[in-house]
Amino acid sequence: MNISIVLAAGEGTRMKSKKSKVLHEVCGKPLLSYVLDASRDAAMEKNIVVIGHGGNEVAEAMEKEDVVFVHQPIGENVPYGTGFAVMQARDYIEDDSYVIILYGDTPLITGDTLNKLVEYHKSCKNVCTVLTAQLEDPTSYGRIIRDEKGNILSIVEHKDATEEERKIKEINSGIYCFDGKYLKLALDNINNDNAQGEYYITDAVQVLKGKNLKVGAYKIENSEEIYGINSRKELANAEKIMKRRIIEKFMENGVTIIDPDSTYINAEAKIGRDTIIYPGTIIEGNSVIGEDCIIGHNTRIANGRIGNRVEIQISTILDSSIDDDSKIGPYAYLRPNSHIGKNVKIGDFVEVKNSNVGDNSKASHLSYIGDADVGKSVNVGCGVVFVNYNGKIKQRSIVEDNAFIGSNSNLVAPVVVREWGYVAAGSTITDEVENGALSIARARQVNKEGWTYKKGFADKNNK
Amino acid sequence: MNISIVLAAGEGTRMKSKKSKVLHEVCGKPLLSYVLDASRDAAMEKNIVVIGHGGNEVAEAMEKEDVVFVHQPIGENVPYGTGFAVMQARDYIEDDSYVIILYGDTPLITGDTLNKLVEYHKSCKNVCTVLTAQLEDPTSYGRIIRDEKGNILSIVEHKDATEEERKIKEINSGIYCFDGKYLKLALDNINNDNAQGEYYITDAVQVLKGKNLKVGAYKIENSEEIYGINSRKELANAEKIMKRRIIEKFMENGVTIIDPDSTYINAEAKIGRDTIIYPGTIIEGNSVIGEDCIIGHNTRIANGRIGNRVEIQISTILDSSIDDDSKIGPYAYLRPNSHIGKNVKIGDFVEVKNSNVGDNSKASHLSYIGDADVGKSVNVGCGVVFVNYNGKIKQRSIVEDNAFIGSNSNLVAPVVVREWGYVAAGSTITDEVENGALSIARARQVNKEGWTYKKGFADKNNK
Amino acid sequence: MNISIVLAAGEGTRMKSKKSKVLHEVCGKPLLSYVLDASRDAAMEKNIVVIGHGGNEVAEAMEKEDVVFVHQPIGENVPYGTGFAVMQARDYIEDDSYVIILYGDTPLITGDTLNKLVEYHKSCKNVCTVLTAQLEDPTSYGRIIRDEKGNILSIVEHKDATEEERKIKEINSGIYCFDGKYLKLALDNINNDNAQGEYYITDAVQVLKGKNLKVGAYKIENSEEIYGINSRKELANAEKIMKRRIIEKFMENGVTIIDPDSTYINAEAKIGRDTIIYPGTIIEGNSVIGEDCIIGHNTRIANGRIGNRVEIQISTILDSSIDDDSKIGPYAYLRPNSHIGKNVKIGDFVEVKNSNVGDNSKASHLSYIGDADVGKSVNVGCGVVFVNYNGKIKQRSIVEDNAFIGSNSNLVAPVVVREWGYVAAGSTITDEVENGALSIARARQVNKEGWTYKKGFADKNNK
Repeated sequence: MNISIVLAAGEGTRMKSKKSKVLHEVCGKPLLSYVLDASRDAAMEKNIVVIGHGGNEVAEAMEKEDVVFVHQPIGENVPYGTGFAVMQARDYIEDDSYVIILYGDTPLITGDTLNKLVEYHKSCKNVCTVLTAQLEDPTSYGRIIRDEKGNILSIVEHKDATEEERKIKEINSGIYCFDGKYLKLALDNINNDNAQGEYYITDAVQVLKGKNLKVGAYKIENSEEIYGINSRKELANAEKIMKRRIIEKFMENGVTIIDPDSTYINAEAKIGRDTIIYPGTIIEGNSVIGEDCIIGHNTRIANGRIGNRVEIQISTILDSSIDDDSKIGPYAYLRPNSHIGKNVKIGDFVEVKNSNVGDNSKASHLSYIGDADVGKSVNVGCGVVFVNYNGKIKQRSIVEDNAFIGSNSNLVAPVVVREWGYVAAGSTITDEVENGALSIARARQVNKEGWTYKKGFADKNNK
Repeated sequence: MNISIVLAAGEGTRMKSKKSKVLHEVCGKPLLSYVLDASRDAAMEKNIVVIGHGGNEVAEAMEKEDVVFVHQPIGENVPYGTGFAVMQARDYIEDDSYVIILYGDTPLITGDTLNKLVEYHKSCKNVCTVLTAQLEDPTSYGRIIRDEKGNILSIVEHKDATEEERKIKEINSGIYCFDGKYLKLALDNINNDNAQGEYYITDAVQVLKGKNLKVGAYKIENSEEIYGINSRKELANAEKIMKRRIIEKFMENGVTIIDPDSTYINAEAKIGRDTIIYPGTIIEGNSVIGEDCIIGHNTRIANGRIGNRVEIQISTILDSSIDDDSKIGPYAYLRPNSHIGKNVKIGDFVEVKNSNVGDNSKASHLSYIGDADVGKSVNVGCGVVFVNYNGKIKQRSIVEDNAFIGSNSNLVAPVVVREWGYVAAGSTITDEVENGALSIARARQVNKEGWTYKKGFADKNNK
Repeated sequence: MNISIVLAAGEGTRMKSKKSKVLHEVCGKPLLSYVLDASRDAAMEKNIVVIGHGGNEVAEAMEKEDVVFVHQPIGENVPYGTGFAVMQARDYIEDDSYVIILYGDTPLITGDTLNKLVEYHKSCKNVCTVLTAQLEDPTSYGRIIRDEKGNILSIVEHKDATEEERKIKEINSGIYCFDGKYLKLALDNINNDNAQGEYYITDAVQVLKGKNLKVGAYKIENSEEIYGINSRKELANAEKIMKRRIIEKFMENGVTIIDPDSTYINAEAKIGRDTIIYPGTIIEGNSVIGEDCIIGHNTRIANGRIGNRVEIQISTILDSSIDDDSKIGPYAYLRPNSHIGKNVKIGDFVEVKNSNVGDNSKASHLSYIGDADVGKSVNVGCGVVFVNYNGKIKQRSIVEDNAFIGSNSNLVAPVVVREWGYVAAGSTITDEVENGALSIARARQVNKEGWTYKKGFADKNNK
C-alpha cells in the first residue's frame, strides 16, 4: 500500500495560538486537509499523520478524514527531528510500496506535483527522490549539490555550505518519495549525532547514497507549492496564493470576477458561465451558483444553491436555495433551510428562516418569514412578522397561493391563511383566514382635533 | 471623412461566454465603447465596426452609439484575418482621409494616444504609421525592425524572427494610421498565400514599402494601452488598470480615497474636493457627489446626485438625489426617484422609494417610505410603513410639514397627514389626519395578572 | 530641553484641499500627529510646530496636543524656505540641548529611527547629523557626498549635481539632529542669496563644515519612513504602508487576518489571540477586542469594547461594549453607549442605542431598543419598537428579567415591563406590565368571507 507520512507534530509557537498550527485555515479549510487532499489526488492509499503537540485536538478535528494518526512521544528525553517523526510511522511502511514524506503546514502542495514526483521516482528507478525547488532567495534552505550529469550528490545545510554552495538556488523542499524498503533501511541507519540531538530525514539521502543506491531529485515547476506556514503573516500569504489559484480557475471557466483581489471563494464552490461576482463577496462551503447570475458586492453565501439568472445584492445566504430568476436584497438574510422559488423577490431588511417561499411571491421589505410555508404569488407586506415563537416553543404557519398579507401585520403561529386570503394592514392574526376572506384585527381610527396645539407639540406661531 | 475601422468580429472563445467578447465590461462599460470613445476623442468622424460572430448582439447593444456596423461574412470558404476584416469596410475609406485601424478588445487605448499617432503620421507625411510599443517581454508579438536612422524596415512575426530579431523589444500593436488612398492600395495587394490562408493587415507595411512609399512607426508612451482582452483574467487585469486610472484622476482633483485598490468608481462620476471615500464603495453610472462628503465603507451609489457635506454609511443609493448636510445609513436603501432634502436623516434599515422627503425630516430606523411626499421637519417613527400597495394598485400618500408619525404605524395610501398632524404609535391610518390633530387607531391595553405563571411560561421557582 | 522643530507651514497645493495638508489623515490620525508621536517616542521634551498657511486651523485641531505653535510670517516681502521656518523657533533652541528638525507631512517616520539618529549623533560627537536614505531612484533629491572614510563632505542638490554625483543613491531626508548651540550658529550664517531668495536649512551643513565642525550622516534602515505626502495619491500610498505596518503587528501577536490588504485597523486597537478578522472590516478608535472572536466581513467597529468568543457579522458598532459569547448581526447597528451582556443575541436589522441588554437576552430581528434597560433572559420579539421619543422629549423604559415582548409591539416610554411580564404580539404598551402579567392591546380578528372575490382582488377563474 502506497502511503504518505505527514509530519504534523510541530508546536508552531510563532502562530501564538491555542490552536494547533495545522488546523489553522486557508480559504476555509485547515492546512492539514490540503496536504491530505494532495496526497489522495496523487493516489496515495493511506495518509499516516504524525502528531505531537496538540495532537488530540488535530485527531479530533480530522475525525471524519480517512487518516491514521500516530502519536509522537513528547518528553524531555525523547529525541526529535523529522527522522524521529517518520520513525513513528514505521509500522505502516511496506517494503514494496512507495512512501511520500509530507508536512502538515504546506497547504499549497498539489496532487499534480506529487503525482509527477512519484512518476519520476518510478521512471528513474530511484530508491529515494527528493522534491527540490529553485528559489530566488535560497537563504536558510539546504542546497542540492549535483554532479555534472545532474545526479544528486548531496544536500548541504545552509549553515554548513561553502560560499560557492550558497550560490546554488536549488533547494531541498523536505518532501521525498521513497521505496518503502529503503526508507526503512535509511531509518535504521540515520542517527542523532548532531548538536541538536535530533534525527533528520534529510540524512536518509547520505545513508542511501553511501550504500550505492540510486537517489534522485525532481524539481518542482512552481516553487510556491512548498511554502510552509509558521506565522499568521505566512498564513495570510498562503491564503492570498490559494485564493488567486481558485479564482483563476473560475475565471478560466467563464465567470467574471470584477476584482479577484477582493473576492473570496472556496475551492469547493461551483459557478456557472457568465455569472458576475462583484467585489467583497465571500462564497463558502459547497455553494453552487448557476449561469448569468449577478452576485452583488459584499454578499456572503455559505452552502447556497443558486439557480440561473438570480440577482443578489449585499445579502447573506446560509444553507439555503434560490431558484431561477429570483432577486435577493440588498440587505436580505436567508438563514438555514430556506427555499426560495422562481422569480421571487426577497427585498431589503427581510429575513427568511427555515421556510419555503413559492414561485412569484414577494417579500419586498422589512419582514420576517420564519418557520413558514408560503405559497405562490403571495404578497408579504412591509413589516409583516411570522410570529413563530411564543416564549416556549416554535411553531409553523402556512400561507397559501395568492394570499395578501398587509403591512405591519402579525401571523401568530400556528396559523393558516388560505388561497386568496387577505390580511388587512396592522392586523394580528391568530385564527385561520379562509379562502378569499378579508381578515382584519385593528381598531378604528379616531381623530382628536387640535390635540398637538393643545398639548404643546405643535407651535401655532410657527405654523 | 477621417474614420476608424474597429475590428470586432473575433469569437473570443477563451472568454467561455455566451456574450460577444467586445460587450464584456470594464468599470461598467463595454470594451468596444472604450475604443469608440478613444476614436472620437481623436476626432475620427466615423467609427466603422466590423462584426462577425455574435455581431447582431453587438449591433443591438450599441444601437445608441453613432456607429456603422459592417458584417464580415462567416462560412467555411470565407478567408479570415485582420486584412479580410478591414476589406469589409472598404466602401467607407476615402482617398484623402485618414483611417485608423483599431480593435474592439483593447479598451485601454486612449484618444490622446490616437491623436498623437495621427499627428505624427501627418507630420512625417507617412502613408502608413504603425503604433508600436516597448515591451519587457515581447514574446509572441511581431517585432519592429528599424534601420540605423530609426526608419521602419519591416515587421517580423515572432515565429519568423531570428534569435537576434527576437531580442528586439519594440513590437507591433496592430494599430495603424493610414492615408485612405494607400490603405486601399494595400488592401488590393495583400494576399492570403500563407499557412492559415488568411489576409493580414500587417502585410500592408511590406506592400507599401515595396512601392517605395513612406511607412513610419510611432511608439506609444504607455504600453498598457494596447492590452488586448482574450480571457476573464485579462478582463480583470484591464479592470484593475482602468480603475486605477479613474481613481488617480479623482485623487488629483482633491478627493481622498482611503484605499484605491478596494474602491470602484466609474469614469463618468463627478466628485467634489475634500470628499472622503471609504473602502468597498462602488460608484456607478452618472453619479455626482459634492464637496466635503463622507461616503462610508461598502456604499453603492448608482446615478446618485449627492450635495455637499453629506454623510453616507454602508448604504445603497439608486437613481436618487440627496441634498446638503443630510445623513444616510448605515444600512439605508434609496430606490429610484427618491429626493432627499437638506439636513435630513435617513437612518438604519430604512427604505425610501419614489418619494420626496423635505428638509430637516427624519426617518431614523426601520421604516418604509414608498410613493410618498413627506414635508419638512417631519418625524417618521421607527417601524412606520407607508402602505402604498393594496394588492391591486400602488397609490401615493402625503405627509405635510411638522407632522409626527408614531412608531409601528401604517399610513394606508392614499392618505394625507396635514401639518402638525400626530399619529399615535401603533395606529393604522386610512383617513385624513387634519392639521394639528392626534389620530389614534389602537386598542386599549388590558393586563391579565399572573397569566405567565398560570400558563407555565414563567417559572415561579426560578423567579 | 531637547526639542523637535516640526515644519508644517507648507501650502500643500497639490492636495487641492481646503484643509491644511498636515491635518489630512492616515489610518484615522492626522499626518502631523504621527510626527509628534515619533518625536515624543524619541524622548524629545517639546515639539515646536512652525505653522503658516492654514496655521490657525492646525493649531485648533491640535489643541489637545502638548505642542508649541509658532507662526511663520506670511507676505510678499517675507523670505521663505526651510531655514527661515526653523528661524521662527529660535527662541526655543537651548545651547546644550539636541534639536531634531522634522516635517509635518512625513507620517511614516518612527520614534525608533529618531532615537537611533540622536544616539548616533551623540556617540559621534557631531554638531549636526543628517538623516539619509538609500533610494532606488534618487532623482530630485539632494545627494550625500562622502569621502573615502565615509565622512560627509557635502550635500549636492539634484539640479547642481554632476553626472557622477547623480549616480549616488544616498540622499538627504531633510531630517537633522543638531546641537542647539550650533544650530543657532548655522541659522546666523545661512543666507538667501539664491535664485529663489529662500533660506535653506540644508546650507547649515556647509556653514558648520566651513567652521571645521563635525557633521555626520546617519542612514535610515527603511527608506519608506521619510516618505513625504504632497498629493492624495501619496496620501493613499502612506495609508497603505501604515496599514500594513499595523496589521503585521496584529498578526505577529496571534490575530488571524484573512486578507491584510482589505482590512483596516487603527494603531490604537487591541485584539486578542486567535481572533479572526474577515475582509472589509474597519476597526477605528480605541477599540478593544478579546480572544477567539470572529469579526465577520465588512464590520465597522469604532471605540468598541468586545469580550471573548464574540461573533460579529456585517455590523456597525459605535462606542459600545459587548460581553463574552454574544452574537451580533448580520446587519446589526449598535449606536453609542450600548452595553450588551454575555451570551446575548442582537440579530439582523436590530438597532440598539444608549441601552443596556442583560445576559442571555435576545433581540433576533427587526427591532429597535433605544434608551432602555433590558434585563436578563428577555426575549424582544421581531418588529418590537422601544418608543423613546414622543416628538418633544426622549424617555427611558425598563424591561426586567425574563420578560417576553411579543412581535411588532410598541413599548411607549417611560414604561416598565416587570419580571416575567408578557406583552402580546401587536400591542402598544403605555402602562406598566406587572410581574407575571400578560398585557394585550389589540383588536379581535374579524373575517369577512369571500371579500377578495367580491372586491375583485382575487380571480375566481384563476383560483
